[in-house]
Amino acid sequence: MFFELTANDQYSGARTGVISTGRGIIKTPVFIPVGTAGSVKGISRYELEHNIGAEIILANTYHLYLRPGLDIISQAGGLHKFTGWEKPMLTDSGGYQVFSLAENRKLSEEGALFRSHIDGSKHKFTPENIVDTQRIIGADIIMAFDECTPWPCEYKYAMDSVELTHRWLERGWKRFVETEAVYGREQFLFPIVQGSVYGDLRKKSAEFISSFAAAGNAIGGLSVGEPSEKMYEMVGVVNKILPESKPRYLMGVGTPANILECISMGVDMFDCVMPTRNGRNGTLFTSEGIINIKNLKWKNDFSPIDPGGTSNTGAQYSRAYLRHLIVSGEMLGSVIASIHNLEFYIWLLKKAREEITLGNFHAWKNSVIPRLSNKI
Amino acid sequence: MFFELTANDQYSGARTGVISTGRGIIKTPVFIPVGTAGSVKGISRYELEHNIGAEIILANTYHLYLRPGLDIISQAGGLHKFTGWEKPMLTDSGGYQVFSLAENRKLSEEGALFRSHIDGSKHKFTPENIVDTQRIIGADIIMAFDECTPWPCEYKYAMDSVELTHRWLERGWKRFVETEAVYGREQFLFPIVQGSVYGDLRKKSAEFISSFAAAGNAIGGLSVGEPSEKMYEMVGVVNKILPESKPRYLMGVGTPANILECISMGVDMFDCVMPTRNGRNGTLFTSEGIINIKNLKWKNDFSPIDPGGTSNTGAQYSRAYLRHLIVSGEMLGSVIASIHNLEFYIWLLKKAREEITLGNFHAWKNSVIPRLSNKI
Repeated sequence: MFFELTANDQYSGARTGVISTGRGIIKTPVFIPVGTAGSVKGISRYELEHNIGAEIILANTYHLYLRPGLDIISQAGGLHKFTGWEKPMLTDSGGYQVFSLAENRKLSEEGALFRSHIDGSKHKFTPENIVDTQRIIGADIIMAFDECTPWPCEYKYAMDSVELTHRWLERGWKRFVETEAVYGREQFLFPIVQGSVYGDLRKKSAEFISSFAAAGNAIGGLSVGEPSEKMYEMVGVVNKILPESKPRYLMGVGTPANILECISMGVDMFDCVMPTRNGRNGTLFTSEGIINIKNLKWKNDFSPIDPGGTSNTGAQYSRAYLRHLIVSGEMLGSVIASIHNLEFYIWLLKKAREEITLGNFHAWKNSVIPRLSNKI
Repeated sequence: MFFELTANDQYSGARTGVISTGRGIIKTPVFIPVGTAGSVKGISRYELEHNIGAEIILANTYHLYLRPGLDIISQAGGLHKFTGWEKPMLTDSGGYQVFSLAENRKLSEEGALFRSHIDGSKHKFTPENIVDTQRIIGADIIMAFDECTPWPCEYKYAMDSVELTHRWLERGWKRFVETEAVYGREQFLFPIVQGSVYGDLRKKSAEFISSFAAAGNAIGGLSVGEPSEKMYEMVGVVNKILPESKPRYLMGVGTPANILECISMGVDMFDCVMPTRNGRNGTLFTSEGIINIKNLKWKNDFSPIDPGGTSNTGAQYSRAYLRHLIVSGEMLGSVIASIHNLEFYIWLLKKAREEITLGNFHAWKNSVIPRLSNKI
């Protein structure tokens, strides 16, 4: 069984579960560190597995397709062999990057024509070749090709787009069931709900997506600039429809508060660049609130990064030392901040699972969100 | 006893020894990783101590004086407490940085006036305040303030400069013996031989330097652009004079071949940014020779970075994967390459110590230098 529910919170939609793949299990709700181009920025796989405790990482199809390219990944025997990461992995469909990074993008019924942001070379993504590409990369969980609409987005555009995403899903699903994993490990394709911030489109999309015999379902096109309340509203609409028995993956979300709110609405999986990207810029998530370590007030604060004990790394370095490293542009500052933030996110999700199991999630969430969101 | 000789090679000047400080021992010949501004770039202290096996690291007085500044380091209780590194540490005098990095440098009998390369602020280094500064930083081995002459350098300039460095040494030494360690751990001041590429100046300088009751002696002003043969010639001149019973530290050197040649002339300590700086740019030192990992030929070479087993990190990652990371500008590429290169240097010096102990150093050195210097 791909997904097994293990506990439900009686005061909210929160639940715990276990996802089983050929490369190991994933306890949900789970946070998935982002390893864009085959590496979580600055962090070794040993650190990820043993110190941070990640059970799954994400890689970006768009980036890997462009560099190192499918030829190299294929010769290596897949991305797991290429990078040495042996635990579960998820790849996105490239849809988000095509619409946010690529140049000269041209959309058609067939797919997306675009130019590489690296060297300007021309490429085409289609629902079919994106399945093929993810077969070659070899992640355990793979995504259907979708159009990720921007925010704000006109209703008419969003409606046409979600319909295109649905037609693409039918084509991608067909390719998925007609092909097999290249490296002998079963892969699971998740379709993606779109529909921008329009409840009726989201509802229609969730209904359509639910009709596929997929192992899990994803929610895309959120956390692209809309207010958090809009995002929560859309997740609420969608999660009423997406089947209880399958994991729900909210793509690209978000802050600690976003994650806890969405867990309470029944989301099981999250990924976000925030802990690593914001960490590199000196923003630290702690049990006491959010720190901008560049702030002068930390210059002689010799207490640990997070006295709340949310991370091993955060206990080993003082705020003053980390501030010095970040202000001086020292690479180690980015590394320490990224590791701490990932440890914090992994700690937060573990804590959420524990609170759900104890039947105390709802109260705990409401008590910690104000503190976690506080800028100190 | 600060330094104890443990073996001498009968066919060369190579020797092994042990330096003892309050924070631990250092087996010589030793390579000292450079931790410029309180961090070896991109590498945690855990990695340095446990995986790389560094017994001592270097920090730069100039950089630390400017940022985070003496106030913060003093409040932290010294650089060891600030960074968490508990093993021996060495600080340079700032002389090299004042003459290579600082702006609007003005030299006088009193010392050096300069502007910070970071914010243009005005500062003054004198032989006395450089001792005081290194007392506050608290490294176990500290350096006298010197003028590091550039290459090429006119004879007259080099002669005047070496005499100034000697007068500065007398003043610095006076301050050193009149003051005490701030944090209760004994500090050892090394004077620095200068004299550019002029044998008679180097000889005079080595004789002058040797007249001080210092725990060890340093050789500066080499590896600044002169041919290796010139450097070896100067080290040969100097090492005939610097006492056998004290460690000899050749500052800022060098390639694996440079290090082995200078060990054979009786040098005991080395530091260099090469393994980390070149690593960040994709140059890897291996038992088979020097690799430019950006070269297209490595794109599908899935063998380990160094099949010769010189490093743990080098055994864990393939050349193709490291190439991908470096070419993609991924921070992890710089981290892996830096760690591998430092492991390689530490391995090389350990191997040198073993060969000296076995009485086989001279033959071994001559057999490995061509291979280690080979660009593959």
